[in-house]
Amino acid sequence: MVHNGIEYAIMQLLSECYDLLSNGMGYTNTELHGVFDNWNKGEMKSFLLEITATIFEKKDEKVNGKYLVDMILDKAGAKGTGKWTSEEGLNLPMPIPTIDAAVMMRNLSSLIEERNEASALYNTKPERINTDRKEFEGLLHDALFFATIISYAQGLAMLTAASTELKMEIPLPEVVSVWRGGCIIRSGLLDYFKKAYENADLKNLLLDKDIVDLLKQKETAIQKIASLAALNNYPVAGFMSSLNYFNAYRRKLLPTNLVQAQRDFFGEHTYQRIDEEGIFHTEWETKSGTTLTKKLD
Amino acid sequence: MVHNGIEYAIMQLLSECYDLLSNGMGYTNTELHGVFDNWNKGEMKSFLLEITATIFEKKDEKVNGKYLVDMILDKAGAKGTGKWTSEEGLNLPMPIPTIDAAVMMRNLSSLIEERNEASALYNTKPERINTDRKEFEGLLHDALFFATIISYAQGLAMLTAASTELKMEIPLPEVVSVWRGGCIIRSGLLDYFKKAYENADLKNLLLDKDIVDLLKQKETAIQKIASLAALNNYPVAGFMSSLNYFNAYRRKLLPTNLVQAQRDFFGEHTYQRIDEEGIFHTEWETKSGTTLTKKLD
Repeated sequence: MVHNGIEYAIMQLLSECYDLLSNGMGYTNTELHGVFDNWNKGEMKSFLLEITATIFEKKDEKVNGKYLVDMILDKAGAKGTGKWTSEEGLNLPMPIPTIDAAVMMRNLSSLIEERNEASALYNTKPERINTDRKEFEGLLHDALFFATIISYAQGLAMLTAASTELKMEIPLPEVVSVWRGGCIIRSGLLDYFKKAYENADLKNLLLDKDIVDLLKQKETAIQKIASLAALNNYPVAGFMSSLNYFNAYRRKLLPTNLVQAQRDFFGEHTYQRIDEEGIFHTEWETKSGTTLTKKLD
Repeated sequence: MVHNGIEYAIMQLLSECYDLLSNGMGYTNTELHGVFDNWNKGEMKSFLLEITATIFEKKDEKVNGKYLVDMILDKAGAKGTGKWTSEEGLNLPMPIPTIDAAVMMRNLSSLIEERNEASALYNTKPERINTDRKEFEGLLHDALFFATIISYAQGLAMLTAASTELKMEIPLPEVVSVWRGGCIIRSGLLDYFKKAYENADLKNLLLDKDIVDLLKQKETAIQKIASLAALNNYPVAGFMSSLNYFNAYRRKLLPTNLVQAQRDFFGEHTYQRIDEEGIFHTEWETKSGTTLTKKLD
């Protein structure tokens, strides 16, 4: 199940690369084939990159001069394993936002009629991104590299948490080894992950020093891709949820103290403090000075 | 349940505003009070803005000179209604990515130990965003306006789909009217939504012409906020998922044709065409020219 969740995430990321390169940068299918084929010769070498490169070469057999991919309806189906992964992510709970985004985008893609109506109402025209082609291609390569690592990190963290929760003692190095074999998410990147899990009993791949270095190298690229996508109206739910996950996971302090304050304010849901053990509740709507904070246990 | 899902989304958005203003722009709690109080005097007037403004004024009763919000642990709890909304979003299915992101961020916030470890490893230091304060405040106001509408749109679209699915005949104008009353998500914006649902049997709020105008006015602001957050390493899962939803929902063509091609390639999951009814499967890994596309029904 987790394998398939990661597969959904990577497929979503590849579709975002496709959108940005074709609509954003004007790449032809032949050029798209070239990009994915080229990426498949490097460190990211993977089954999904390989078939993506092949797909862009395939001519349509029904309409002369057309490529098959361009004749395929953009309504993604699903057999349910992505949904199942998202559900179990909620149950554990363990955040897997890139996988969730991939499942969501498949569901959104099937709202064909509504999308047609909205496209007319908003007069949506995907516009060219005004930037250097070679530079953009390099940034996109690194952003995909980054977000692919994040996708595996989310799935593997989920597997680790589930293993503890269900007392399954799942051997993570072996899981990663098995995935290097004949499966759909096999990738050159799995060598890094195997090494990381052999070195330490990691709760998350992001806590491995070599992965830290890799992500730091590619960080600027995904920042720039997310920024360009935002400014040019390209939906990149996979890239953005990967970047947000990275930026939230490595923050000592998140602004969720405000959420706890709000919950305690309107629902007496209590809060914890940073300087003292215990559960507290405050009567928020009184003048400051009056003592209305109570320790509850 | 859907009411609470929307509540999660708006609270997440407010926490992102707080992070960007305090860490990104250096606003003090007094200034934060001023911003939220000011926003609460305009079109966005809402219960959640009102209590947020009040929260930033509240002094701590235990440590002299401190504000209570700063003494609250950033680990958000949840009673489960957000999770329930995300689960039902998956079941319908109906995309509700801003609500999903809010649920995910609460779950992520509770990984306190891992976040501490990651913060040290990545040497995370929230940095000042180098931009004009007043301009940024205006952009953030409009981005919040935009993303709040998107949050309601997602929840209400889910309610509409559920109503059809379960033959409940939920009267949307009345739902919105009830929400204008004493509930946590009451907001000045609900007047627009009530009008929209009274005017037409909408599948999605985004298909109402007045809402189109409102969103178009605020679109540039959320683009810029998302871009600045990306470039300055601020996690803004709520803002970005709202922007992505908007940009995907209004696209006639999404790059999900590639996802369908990949699925048919590796799993014979079939696809539909844009020019002909039916379900098709292609043998992808052959030289072009050989007829290997089959119509299956």
